[in-house]
Amino acid sequence: MLGICIENVRKNLPLVHNITNYVTVNDVANVILACGGSPIMSDEPLDVEDITSICGGLNINIGTLNKSTIEGMKLAGKKANELNHMVLLDPVGAGASKLRTETAVSLMDTIKFDVIRGNISEIKTLALGSGTTKGVDADAADTVTEENLEQMVEFAKNFSAKTGAITAITGAIDLVSNSEKCYVIRNGRPEMGKITGTGCQLSGMMTAFIVANPDNKLEAAAAAVCTMGLAGEIGWSYMQDGDGNSTYRNRIIDAIFNMNEKTLDEGAKYEIK
Amino acid sequence: MLGICIENVRKNLPLVHNITNYVTVNDVANVILACGGSPIMSDEPLDVEDITSICGGLNINIGTLNKSTIEGMKLAGKKANELNHMVLLDPVGAGASKLRTETAVSLMDTIKFDVIRGNISEIKTLALGSGTTKGVDADAADTVTEENLEQMVEFAKNFSAKTGAITAITGAIDLVSNSEKCYVIRNGRPEMGKITGTGCQLSGMMTAFIVANPDNKLEAAAAAVCTMGLAGEIGWSYMQDGDGNSTYRNRIIDAIFNMNEKTLDEGAKYEIK
Amino acid sequence: MLGICIENVRKNLPLVHNITNYVTVNDVANVILACGGSPIMSDEPLDVEDITSICGGLNINIGTLNKSTIEGMKLAGKKANELNHMVLLDPVGAGASKLRTETAVSLMDTIKFDVIRGNISEIKTLALGSGTTKGVDADAADTVTEENLEQMVEFAKNFSAKTGAITAITGAIDLVSNSEKCYVIRNGRPEMGKITGTGCQLSGMMTAFIVANPDNKLEAAAAAVCTMGLAGEIGWSYMQDGDGNSTYRNRIIDAIFNMNEKTLDEGAKYEIK
Repeated sequence: MLGICIENVRKNLPLVHNITNYVTVNDVANVILACGGSPIMSDEPLDVEDITSICGGLNINIGTLNKSTIEGMKLAGKKANELNHMVLLDPVGAGASKLRTETAVSLMDTIKFDVIRGNISEIKTLALGSGTTKGVDADAADTVTEENLEQMVEFAKNFSAKTGAITAITGAIDLVSNSEKCYVIRNGRPEMGKITGTGCQLSGMMTAFIVANPDNKLEAAAAAVCTMGLAGEIGWSYMQDGDGNSTYRNRIIDAIFNMNEKTLDEGAKYEIK
Repeated sequence: MLGICIENVRKNLPLVHNITNYVTVNDVANVILACGGSPIMSDEPLDVEDITSICGGLNINIGTLNKSTIEGMKLAGKKANELNHMVLLDPVGAGASKLRTETAVSLMDTIKFDVIRGNISEIKTLALGSGTTKGVDADAADTVTEENLEQMVEFAKNFSAKTGAITAITGAIDLVSNSEKCYVIRNGRPEMGKITGTGCQLSGMMTAFIVANPDNKLEAAAAAVCTMGLAGEIGWSYMQDGDGNSTYRNRIIDAIFNMNEKTLDEGAKYEIK
Repeated sequence: MLGICIENVRKNLPLVHNITNYVTVNDVANVILACGGSPIMSDEPLDVEDITSICGGLNINIGTLNKSTIEGMKLAGKKANELNHMVLLDPVGAGASKLRTETAVSLMDTIKFDVIRGNISEIKTLALGSGTTKGVDADAADTVTEENLEQMVEFAKNFSAKTGAITAITGAIDLVSNSEKCYVIRNGRPEMGKITGTGCQLSGMMTAFIVANPDNKLEAAAAAVCTMGLAGEIGWSYMQDGDGNSTYRNRIIDAIFNMNEKTLDEGAKYEIK
């Protein structure tokens, strides 16, 4: 079911405009290429409108925002909305600083997002105006668990109803939801948290997925989450003696590069609530 | 013939000042180290003149330009020209936005470049004021093919005659030309397009090559192109089950690290027109 | 003795705020994760005070400084001092440009640093107002050798006495010193110089080490240097036919990921002077 979504990326070669942080940007580019898309990066206010116009989707990630790139995000988002392009928000570190929280809220006020993807602390911050945060990682107190699952599924649906965007909350258990339906996904490995930027990579890839599957955005977003998690499992299976987080990073991207419809359909672990 | 050029890089340890995009900058640095050069990055207008003064060459790449770095490019280029340093332009995304096209044109108007290296869409944009572009990749409609080869060789020679710079047009078939002589190079693999920044890496390495071979700039530029393509072939030969574009990226840089005169001379595939 | 320091990092999960260059930032993040810390990057003046407040330490690296990030460094450093957080300075390229030298000096005048880590040329520049430099690498004329070792140990102790900071001078022989005691460390391999940013990576990791070992800062800084050098030795032992500097980069980070108290205690090569 979800497998067809990655095939559509490989067929359509979606061009994705990324305004993203300089920490993980290279991996974001290589992941977009690995899944079949084509990345372009531009954050200068004088440049972003032209660049986003030739793309199919826009990925906004506030990981290392600054005054100039925030202006770029706003101009690019407005233009992308005018052109009915897909737009995704990754509110990295919302809750960790006033500027990040306010920027994320302000972007949500002025841009219509198709997907908002973050960890549970970031999404709680945006939903409730609060949320504990440990830097750019979710706080343990906020985790989605089997115990609070029903409640968190409701939370995700409500956040989607309020924002009009698909909500993607990623962690040990991932939730991908619109206001009515929620994919609960159990792919992935805990060691992925020892690599910087797997969340940023997912946001870039997810943008490519929704651009290539415009009529099935919820499924496409869920498929991107399953692809990332499954790549984490497959990549881990190739780990050898002496390997660590740097080699694991490569192996995950490699597994995305080799992912196809069949592998994804067989490996995706999800239920719909 | 070309092999001696990489030996000269290893002997001379050229210091290369890079004003380049934040997407692929780490790979650019590691490629310059791999071929025997030494990289330094600086884009702040207050810093670039001092930095470029202690280097042998300057690599200007407009991949994620902004108002401040454009000013840095102009100041560094002017200083490098005063000091008779080698200067290379990589007009990433020329044709994809007004700012990129205008910046590349403005740089060409004010700085004397030793080499201009880009894909065919970028170079056509600079030569003709037009050119189709697919983001930062060349458009299929613009490809250099066996069918249009003679015509494209003429185009490259004419662009060199007009600009006074060596023209390096890279793609499935690469052209490295001055106004009279054109290397037609057939090294490389199509999978290199699935790695972000092989073009940026080549520009950084090519700057090191021309700095270390000042009396044979055309040969040095061609040798850098052959080194990159051949490294793509050698790197691919080490690929194993489960490997993808991320591991391939490492293998290509590794192959440059291990490249020597003999390997390059035996593996370089080119003709001169 | 030093091995306990890395165990403390793994136990305490120190959050490290990095204002660092965009060349090597991804590797810095992955190295901090590899040793057991958690990285966050932020350089925007409006953001840095909040971010540094939630962290345990601040790593300031001037590798690709600009007007805005210099302001960010000053604000973050001041706030970190107020909160008694650990603060480290990596004066990349001090001596290579007026801006870098002046910025490093100005930061030292206004911020109390717990550690200053650089190559010998950079530290000499800060100590003596002079020092030869080859871009971002130390000049050969400045090397710490067995012949000048006693003299250099004195120099490191004096620099610590003058600045009140631990001095970490890294190269073929590494010195980690306060005003009274100097670790002379002989781990590492020359091939590490063929990878961009091993110094930056070390600065990030060292910040995590001192945060997690606040009562033994000198030992912690020395342990970080031994960890990096030993990882270079272990990583090299995994190198295979065809591998080069890019794979070596991954192997070093992997070795840090797998480092534990026992490995570090058995592999650390140092004497105290």
